[in-house]
Amino acid sequence: MASFKGKAVIGQSGGPTCVINQTLVGALLEAGHHPEIQAFYGARHGVHGMLQEDFIDLRAESSDTLEAVARTPSAALGSVRKRPTEEDCQRLIEVFRSRDIRYFFYIGGNDSAETADIVSKRARETAYELRVVHLPKTIDNDLRVTDHCPGYGSAARFVALALMGDTLDNRALAGVKIDVIMGRHAGFLTAASALGRRDEDDGPHLIYLPEIPFDLDRFLGDVERVLRLHGRCVVAVSEGIAGPDGKPVFQCGETDAHGNVQLSGSGALGDFLAAPVRSRLGVKRVRADTFGYLQRCFPTIVSPIDAAESRAIGAFAVREIVRGDRESGSAAIRRLGSGKDYSCEFFFTELSSVARETRPLGKEFIAPAGNDVTPAFIDYALPLIGELPTLGRLRARRVSFGSTAS
Amino acid sequence: MASFKGKAVIGQSGGPTCVINQTLVGALLEAGHHPEIQAFYGARHGVHGMLQEDFIDLRAESSDTLEAVARTPSAALGSVRKRPTEEDCQRLIEVFRSRDIRYFFYIGGNDSAETADIVSKRARETAYELRVVHLPKTIDNDLRVTDHCPGYGSAARFVALALMGDTLDNRALAGVKIDVIMGRHAGFLTAASALGRRDEDDGPHLIYLPEIPFDLDRFLGDVERVLRLHGRCVVAVSEGIAGPDGKPVFQCGETDAHGNVQLSGSGALGDFLAAPVRSRLGVKRVRADTFGYLQRCFPTIVSPIDAAESRAIGAFAVREIVRGDRESGSAAIRRLGSGKDYSCEFFFTELSSVARETRPLGKEFIAPAGNDVTPAFIDYALPLIGELPTLGRLRARRVSFGSTAS
Repeated sequence: MASFKGKAVIGQSGGPTCVINQTLVGALLEAGHHPEIQAFYGARHGVHGMLQEDFIDLRAESSDTLEAVARTPSAALGSVRKRPTEEDCQRLIEVFRSRDIRYFFYIGGNDSAETADIVSKRARETAYELRVVHLPKTIDNDLRVTDHCPGYGSAARFVALALMGDTLDNRALAGVKIDVIMGRHAGFLTAASALGRRDEDDGPHLIYLPEIPFDLDRFLGDVERVLRLHGRCVVAVSEGIAGPDGKPVFQCGETDAHGNVQLSGSGALGDFLAAPVRSRLGVKRVRADTFGYLQRCFPTIVSPIDAAESRAIGAFAVREIVRGDRESGSAAIRRLGSGKDYSCEFFFTELSSVARETRPLGKEFIAPAGNDVTPAFIDYALPLIGELPTLGRLRARRVSFGSTAS
Repeated sequence: MASFKGKAVIGQSGGPTCVINQTLVGALLEAGHHPEIQAFYGARHGVHGMLQEDFIDLRAESSDTLEAVARTPSAALGSVRKRPTEEDCQRLIEVFRSRDIRYFFYIGGNDSAETADIVSKRARETAYELRVVHLPKTIDNDLRVTDHCPGYGSAARFVALALMGDTLDNRALAGVKIDVIMGRHAGFLTAASALGRRDEDDGPHLIYLPEIPFDLDRFLGDVERVLRLHGRCVVAVSEGIAGPDGKPVFQCGETDAHGNVQLSGSGALGDFLAAPVRSRLGVKRVRADTFGYLQRCFPTIVSPIDAAESRAIGAFAVREIVRGDRESGSAAIRRLGSGKDYSCEFFFTELSSVARETRPLGKEFIAPAGNDVTPAFIDYALPLIGELPTLGRLRARRVSFGSTAS
């Protein structure tokens, strides 16, 4: 099995990130060291391109182009939100067989791991020898098994910086500010809003996560309390907050092929939450921003450690699948040191252990009151986002005119 | 008049920017070289703090703190949206007189220039010798006389980068994407969405400015045409777009003390525009993001030239008002070289020439079709935003299986 030969195909799936192309380039360049991989194809728009045999020859790209692509956000091959049918999976195996494709790399989240898992099983059933690797990527950080997901650190950096700026803005012009952050079922990205807090009065003052049932009255009570304390209030809220019945507090109605309801790309939830702050609490200045797609593809807002890990995990996966004796797997990250001693290593886990179900933000990361994160979350996430800028604040010694009046 | 002595007060007003603190620190440090300025007070929240005598002693701040503050977004002194009444202006002069404040520096937009103008006139009427300087700041870039406004370059950089990322995202997962950008009456910031375009199919494919009456049917026709050409469409639209009657296409209802209607801090306009793209054009994947407050206070997204100019104009204003023989003025920027030879100098203009009315995006910057900008705009704005990252794109040589089939 050590000299298992054939062509390789790689695809990207799901929402783009700032570093998904690092993984693509990491895998491609590592494959260049392994003569077992006789060609390296990129599939346009994931399984969609594989079904159409819409492949590009990645080995024809110059190293300058590849390095520039690695630094570029979004999915260079194009992405897709498609759940392959049974028929599609049959067709995929046929395509692979006819083109002697023996390595299938799929970069994506839990839905992509599921696709990889199905394809791997069908290949085995039809006795087609195929190596299948899922490479993790998601800004939501909601994959099981892995310590964290490539792509999360950079998106979390965006959210942390955005809240640092927003709390300064709110301090300059007081009011209630509501920021709606991505994360369908998992609160990791919304929790990252806390990573830039330094002073006791820094926002976000309240954080609402999809893991905790949302209650409008409690939310309004929380806002009122913060207003009494600071005279202003910055709120970070996940787009995926749901009521006690598990239904999203607000949704637009569109549903994708995986059954996911559209939450992003609309400012409706923010406006929905802002209205009662205005009408019931009588706050005059209430603003809601929905970060939307900015948080996942913003050029220059990249965590260096996220970029390096995303690159390295692509190389790891190719090296191990070529040399190892496993047929399939999902590459994952194990944390070794913590805090400033942070380091990590990679390992393989079963595709089925990552596919389908997602991982929520753990209880140890959620403050007992359900409207903030814990110091344990800060310890967990801070090493992943790169260094934050040090912000300045005036000492602000108030001028006293007492002596001139005496 | 060369040795006109007294204390100085400085305030910040209106929406924060990433570099307004540079102007504060530039003015403060320059004042340190002029013994005529016997103390340098910062007023908390602009005229609000001046009326309350809520001053801080800026000369008590360490230079480390000041340098950190200069690099920090938002208004370090706090800001305000307050139009002083006649009574307020009387009270202001009384405060200045009782504290021997002879220099009044006000950093802000056209509303702040108007406040400065009123205060200057009342001081003259009551024979109180006072030097009044308006220091320009606005991300909207809508002040008259000056070539451009401190704060614009950094916000324009944010918008340009955001659209670079968004067009990559839209290329990976096709659909119609609508980005709503700040700018109440002037389209400069929305126009900056074009600054990162490189390839022919890069977005934004359509740009709607407040200067051109918005027509929903024409908008839908434009989107349909772009969809036919590229199979996807990225739209940049100003929050301030208005119909032929001059009324905003969409507004939330809140109005500030200057009579300005609230446009930001809500996703309603984007959702309003997305709906007919979905229902009338039948496009399945339609998303709208409203950039909101992120675009004016985002740490690390700063144009180096904007930061340097914002610092230098503060120093210029102090130097000139102390040494010169004018009683009041608004500091302004004159462009000297263009393109790569860009350079500028500062000068004073009358407060009344900047106060009240704003400047729209000039006709020479708007494409004849009314849905894009001209190359002249790119020439104008590109030197102001700092260097943009070079993005990579795969050459994408398609794999041909023709030979194996023969």
